[in-house]
Amino acid sequence: MSEAPDFAKGDGLLPAIAQDAETGEILMMAYMNAESYAETLATGRAVYFSRSRQKLWRKGEESGNVQQVRDVFLDCDDDTILLKVNQIGDAACHTGYRSCFYRRVTPEGLEVVGKKVFDPDEVYKK
Amino acid sequence: MSEAPDFAKGDGLLPAIAQDAETGEILMMAYMNAESYAETLATGRAVYFSRSRQKLWRKGEESGNVQQVRDVFLDCDDDTILLKVNQIGDAACHTGYRSCFYRRVTPEGLEVVGKKVFDPDEVYKK
Repeated sequence: MSEAPDFAKGDGLLPAIAQDAETGEILMMAYMNAESYAETLATGRAVYFSRSRQKLWRKGEESGNVQQVRDVFLDCDDDTILLKVNQIGDAACHTGYRSCFYRRVTPEGLEVVGKKVFDPDEVYKK
Repeated sequence: MSEAPDFAKGDGLLPAIAQDAETGEILMMAYMNAESYAETLATGRAVYFSRSRQKLWRKGEESGNVQQVRDVFLDCDDDTILLKVNQIGDAACHTGYRSCFYRRVTPEGLEVVGKKVFDPDEVYKK
């Protein structure tokens, strides 16, 4: 155990879970590199690293749905980060659902259980 | 989006978050391969894939602290799994803490905030 995330364990990227600070709902999981982690701590807003775009992802920079970070936790082996956040705009997921985990696995397939908060076509204009 | 986790996206392994079904506390994060995911659904007990041991990890097989799976959710891009569980033995972490996320990041370093439930030297006898 160390006193900081061990980014080397994840080849530079570690998973970061965003949990609603009030309700405990898990909103999303994304990845952080050392730079995005440092900026998150410095600014109090969640900053991830986008694997698909290969660059810093300041959550909400396009949608406005920023995450104000209330607390940060590190797991026992220093390779997973937990953020407790206030989700501005009431939705974390780019699909418009409050949480990215809006589909429940059932024997018959996936069941949509989450609440759709916005229309992504309106928010992410081309 | 598909109707199942896309294990190929993680080179065979996807992160799986275990959340207390009652309290919403995040207990741990580990990895699953297709086999452990299938066994989890079939048995109703959380089964992960241990990256360090490179084999199936039936959570609680040594400590007795199994996780009864109440619900399974899949995220929007099919590459993160969320388990809502009942944690038997009241502790998920091999260190004896209830949650692996028992350390809070502060400007002065890490602060232990979690509750220690058992003594790992007693539980994991050599």
